[in-house]
Amino acid sequence: MNNALVTKLGGAEGIDIPAFCADAANIVRSGRPLVIVHGGSHDTNVLSEQLNHPPVFITSPSGHTSRRTDRRTLEIFQMACRGQLNQRIVEALQRRAVNAVGLSGMDGRLWEGTRKSTVRAVVDGRVMMIRDDYTGTVERVNTGLIRTLLEAGFTPVISPPAISTDSEPINVDADRAAAMTAAALGAGTLLLLSNVPGLLREFPDESTLIPTVARGEIERFAGFAQGRMKKKVLGAGEALAGGVGRVVIADARAATPITDALAGAGTAFQ
Amino acid sequence: MNNALVTKLGGAEGIDIPAFCADAANIVRSGRPLVIVHGGSHDTNVLSEQLNHPPVFITSPSGHTSRRTDRRTLEIFQMACRGQLNQRIVEALQRRAVNAVGLSGMDGRLWEGTRKSTVRAVVDGRVMMIRDDYTGTVERVNTGLIRTLLEAGFTPVISPPAISTDSEPINVDADRAAAMTAAALGAGTLLLLSNVPGLLREFPDESTLIPTVARGEIERFAGFAQGRMKKKVLGAGEALAGGVGRVVIADARAATPITDALAGAGTAFQ
Repeated sequence: MNNALVTKLGGAEGIDIPAFCADAANIVRSGRPLVIVHGGSHDTNVLSEQLNHPPVFITSPSGHTSRRTDRRTLEIFQMACRGQLNQRIVEALQRRAVNAVGLSGMDGRLWEGTRKSTVRAVVDGRVMMIRDDYTGTVERVNTGLIRTLLEAGFTPVISPPAISTDSEPINVDADRAAAMTAAALGAGTLLLLSNVPGLLREFPDESTLIPTVARGEIERFAGFAQGRMKKKVLGAGEALAGGVGRVVIADARAATPITDALAGAGTAFQ
Repeated sequence: MNNALVTKLGGAEGIDIPAFCADAANIVRSGRPLVIVHGGSHDTNVLSEQLNHPPVFITSPSGHTSRRTDRRTLEIFQMACRGQLNQRIVEALQRRAVNAVGLSGMDGRLWEGTRKSTVRAVVDGRVMMIRDDYTGTVERVNTGLIRTLLEAGFTPVISPPAISTDSEPINVDADRAAAMTAAALGAGTLLLLSNVPGLLREFPDESTLIPTVARGEIERFAGFAQGRMKKKVLGAGEALAGGVGRVVIADARAATPITDALAGAGTAFQ
């Protein structure tokens, strides 16, 4: 599906869902197959606080930070991603006459991966082993359900969690899941939209935006990525390696974020 | 789809989801198309309390009790139904090799209805008009998505809310939505499973179970229904009127609740 467009919408604060969905409606009306992927970090943090199970972030020995996902956190994550943000996007799309269908990576085993049997975390300078974490990485995208929906005129809206090979829900990075989805579909373009204008040479100075990165140079440019941007650059490289023609990391806060990213805004990896 | 089976699982306490799903897996393995519908009243009540937005029930002038559904309650209802219970059922089915896909009535405009512009409630003996309630009744089932999924080998698991003609989420009765779904699909059988053995002549004496009700006698037998059972009997009548061959109200608490209901347990309306 080379004309297919996979768009990941960041779940952070400041994203204008109605504006994004109005722009998405333009894409769908033009006849281009669109798949929307989203996370839900911000909503999960808010709901975790409200439910007296505050978010905890752990740092791996290699310095990577991730959400500590015990079973209760996973349930909260499901409620926030699947029950709240996903259905808010579906509602906004339906209001604009886009026949959206919300899915998690568990539905139809859309996103399959291995649950990490142990997670290593550095606590007070010592490495601890955590055995009841529900995290993993998407290793396989079962595109059958997505293709079936697209062919029948529906627009899939997909959120974590994914499903483990043992059928447990697992928290996965939505940027990299979107990259895997684009590659598995043979999509021509992947957009990773969030509350940053793209990859910055000197974060957070937005005037230092890097407009293009050639595929052979991703490793060199990855050094400029800070925090969450690291996963996006990693995802961009994985998508290109998987056959996606172009990946754009761009701003979701614009009035027409999808149109802008397709027209050259943000950082294009190609 | 005359061999299709629509099964509504009550969301009340005491329901053994793994047992229900193991039995559902037997049905799917036998090759019979299965659609699962569920509510989420109990989970919504629990989550509402946890989020300091306690459930409120209102009584109409005709004596019918329903959940007061302001926008915040609706969000909580979505998190409980769609984010929690729905995905718990999908997980339990996936563990048993059933390729389940969770959906709400909003996804693919599956369940469409009119939002009530005003809801009348009796408060302290006086009738009040409530204008910001998100409730309604399913008037139209867009079966395209369900048929597409069944034909592709997936098992749909559907929860409220439904979607209004103006694309707002609306709280609807899941028993009646299941009845509408069975009728729209041309399903031969509808099962309404919950934590009661069936229609009782003298509620709550389970020895007074009414085994069968002929379709011409539903109105007469409806007088025995108490509380939630009224909606089930109403749904049974609507399903039969819509062409469903048989409706069984039976116990979800059994080890094999679907098999039992198909084999004669509970109250059969035919």
